Amino acid sequence: MSTGHIVASYDEELAQLHRTITTMGRLASTQLSRALKATLERDGDLAAAVMADDAQIDALEQQIENQTLKLLALRAPVGRDLREVVAALKIANNLERIGDFAANVAKRSLALNQMPEVELTRSLRRIGDAANDMLTQVVTAYADGDAAAALAVREADNEVDLAYTALFRELLTYMMEAPQRITACTHLMFAAKNLERIGDHATNIAETLCFQVLGQAPDAERAKGDDTALTIVTPGA
Amino acid sequence: MSTGHIVASYDEELAQLHRTITTMGRLASTQLSRALKATLERDGDLAAAVMADDAQIDALEQQIENQTLKLLALRAPVGRDLREVVAALKIANNLERIGDFAANVAKRSLALNQMPEVELTRSLRRIGDAANDMLTQVVTAYADGDAAAALAVREADNEVDLAYTALFRELLTYMMEAPQRITACTHLMFAAKNLERIGDHATNIAETLCFQVLGQAPDAERAKGDDTALTIVTPGA
Repeated sequence: MSTGHIVASYDEELAQLHRTITTMGRLASTQLSRALKATLERDGDLAAAVMADDAQIDALEQQIENQTLKLLALRAPVGRDLREVVAALKIANNLERIGDFAANVAKRSLALNQMPEVELTRSLRRIGDAANDMLTQVVTAYADGDAAAALAVREADNEVDLAYTALFRELLTYMMEAPQRITACTHLMFAAKNLERIGDHATNIAETLCFQVLGQAPDAERAKGDDTALTIVTPGA
Repeated sequence: MSTGHIVASYDEELAQLHRTITTMGRLASTQLSRALKATLERDGDLAAAVMADDAQIDALEQQIENQTLKLLALRAPVGRDLREVVAALKIANNLERIGDFAANVAKRSLALNQMPEVELTRSLRRIGDAANDMLTQVVTAYADGDAAAALAVREADNEVDLAYTALFRELLTYMMEAPQRITACTHLMFAAKNLERIGDHATNIAETLCFQVLGQAPDAERAKGDDTALTIVTPGA
């Protein structure tokens, strides 16, 4: 009976860790939705709320770190259990970064609200929605322990990258045509970059989930569509 | 004798992990120096080499992950040893990101080389050198297991943030004055942001080292000097 009790408790600790990660993932996705909404609707109160609520995500990461340290110290997991615990640490770190990016989008929206609206702001929706689709799908894949679903998420990152690259070029052109919009466009560029990075972190989570379930990360380096580091746009071109 | 042998081997495994992290940290610092040099001297061959050598940093992160998984599974470390193993995972992740940022600076320098030189490129040196000072100091603090030295590194991040904020404002103003320089200035902005993020990751490493040595991360949230998300510059202002 005593052994049975200890085993049940160990399983419960792993299940608890799993639930905390899932909760954190859903919160990150909500934060991203709200940050986008705040930006598109120029809703400063919502933006401030998103920035404040980032502390909840940080607290969950700390909680997960404490849970994993306790599990490692007291349960000495091996095999799949060990991979699950190490994966939890890595996924929590990715989700914390996603929360930071969402909060930074919200913060930049406050600057954007002080300037005339730039039409291209609308284009953030495509990048943000695509990134949030990846995020919600990878959180569901995590909740279900579904490596195949995780791999599918990874493929979707290309769409995020392409949408980001297109907007980056459009913003450069627009800045050249309307220098008085340079500050607003710069904030839009960084906001778009944040959304593109959220796609990268969702991809990282998918790869970590594959490692957790299958014992190894997926082989092939995925195609990277963000070529903006080499993008050149010249006036009148 | 048999127990003595096992203990010695366990210590050797921890020492090996420690050496791999230190090697990775020094390589990340070298990559950053080379990326800066490539940008300032418009040396495309060096930039290409930095981009190619990023694979070495990625490989070291993988090696550290394998070493930590093996240690956790076979040695079931507790206490300070456990903290050292978990810290190694986190620090390796931060160093991998620093390598990515250095490689991205190098990549952007290739775009910059195709455009007339922008005088403000020189300002990258101040940010880059300050970030690299933080990085080399935190790697030394790690090699020495010195939490006090790590805390000092954390304070230096403010200088990086201030230098970044100053350059961000200067670049906005310059773009308004010279719209034909918008593309080059945009790449400089993102390069500067990469350098600023390297400072953040060096700070993260310092905090992780404090956790490893002292058993808890430092309390106070450090002052954050990067206020560029709220920066507004208007033409002729």
